[in-house]
Amino acid sequence: MPRIAFITEFDGTDFAGFQSQENARAVQDVLEKALEDLYKTKIRLTGCSRTDAGVHARCHLSHADVPFVIPEDKFPLAMNALLPDDVAVKKSFYVADDFSARFDIKGKRYIYRIYSSPTRSPLLDRTSYYCPVLPDIAKMQAAASFFAGEHDFAAFCATGGSQKTTIRRLFGVKVEAIGEDPCQIEIEVSGEAFLYNMVRIIAGTLLYVGQGKIEPSEVASIIEGGDRSQAGKTLPAKGLTLEEVFIDSD
Amino acid sequence: MPRIAFITEFDGTDFAGFQSQENARAVQDVLEKALEDLYKTKIRLTGCSRTDAGVHARCHLSHADVPFVIPEDKFPLAMNALLPDDVAVKKSFYVADDFSARFDIKGKRYIYRIYSSPTRSPLLDRTSYYCPVLPDIAKMQAAASFFAGEHDFAAFCATGGSQKTTIRRLFGVKVEAIGEDPCQIEIEVSGEAFLYNMVRIIAGTLLYVGQGKIEPSEVASIIEGGDRSQAGKTLPAKGLTLEEVFIDSD
Repeated sequence: MPRIAFITEFDGTDFAGFQSQENARAVQDVLEKALEDLYKTKIRLTGCSRTDAGVHARCHLSHADVPFVIPEDKFPLAMNALLPDDVAVKKSFYVADDFSARFDIKGKRYIYRIYSSPTRSPLLDRTSYYCPVLPDIAKMQAAASFFAGEHDFAAFCATGGSQKTTIRRLFGVKVEAIGEDPCQIEIEVSGEAFLYNMVRIIAGTLLYVGQGKIEPSEVASIIEGGDRSQAGKTLPAKGLTLEEVFIDSD
Repeated sequence: MPRIAFITEFDGTDFAGFQSQENARAVQDVLEKALEDLYKTKIRLTGCSRTDAGVHARCHLSHADVPFVIPEDKFPLAMNALLPDDVAVKKSFYVADDFSARFDIKGKRYIYRIYSSPTRSPLLDRTSYYCPVLPDIAKMQAAASFFAGEHDFAAFCATGGSQKTTIRRLFGVKVEAIGEDPCQIEIEVSGEAFLYNMVRIIAGTLLYVGQGKIEPSEVASIIEGGDRSQAGKTLPAKGLTLEEVFIDSD
């Protein structure tokens, strides 16, 4: 059977996350339903990342074994005709039989979005976390520099994870701010692999730094200390978007 | 009674437009309900523009006579605590007794958003119109130059309007494109006043130009001809956002 890999974009607002679960609307279920409609047989897919309820994706990768070949440029259009408005297949390509969207990716890039304005903004609220008072961007940028590299990120992991180790390698964390009112802040986090809620805790810690609750230099010792209670709060899911999945070594 | 003017931002997706109407959710009703909760008495407001169902606003102006003074910087916060997620008051200021949000504004600026990509994008779809094939931006820019100034815009007015004249003065129409996939196209239209569906028909005409259905130079004669059937189609409401209301002569 040919194995197809495909990139999916979704607005996570009305989803209980990517992965199938009982009594909840998951992106995986919606995609598998479309695959079944298209190929007239039940098809199980594997995704690169579970993603929490409310998290968005511009570039989520999945793979599935399908009963026949649909050309790579036609597959997205065929799927999109069957998918609801909040999910779309952006691209597809055939892969080797042993390729796994879960195990063969080289890393992922997320952006956590925050906006600052004296009043909230309905047009930004869906994909961005509202922070009334502008945080200190320069301090956030200084603190961001400590995350790159291989560290034990136990302080940046929600309890309840089942991982064997909390050591992960991040490629980098960058903070950018655009505009004045609203000021839109993007916290970009890229790395090989992530712990449960890791990006949202990194974003919450950097926001605390921007609000003067944590000094930039303290972030190094918070990473080293491995104590979750020393890091910032987990920011809400709606501000997080999976922006890119690294498939090759690029 | 003090008269207060205030700027409102709303996501128009779940509204039947700004103005109150029977059996539909209108922004005006939601705002008047919050005013009533705040001042404990029924308050009627006047808006700068009705806006169609599905149209968004980053800067809609209203005024209302209120029974007592709430400081200008506190009014938005008090209102926002009472408003649903898809509407917010951004700013407020007290005005003269005879100021009207409807009659005393000097003009408005709209942006119509289109995005182009081989596949649709759930994260752009809410506020942008999807156009699979990239239109010719240079042609659209050339055609846009014909709209500025005072013209009879009968060709750019939906039937059913009740206006006495179809002459309007536009300050300008600009077309910009950002990015490649998706390419996000912004058609900015600013003017003194507008006819029913005028911006959406201008956007539809410029899209036809970008698709080669109308030559840029023909736009001048379409304006002059005054025949609605010669202009492009009315693009969907969701791509349209009221971006600014000009209150002074600036």
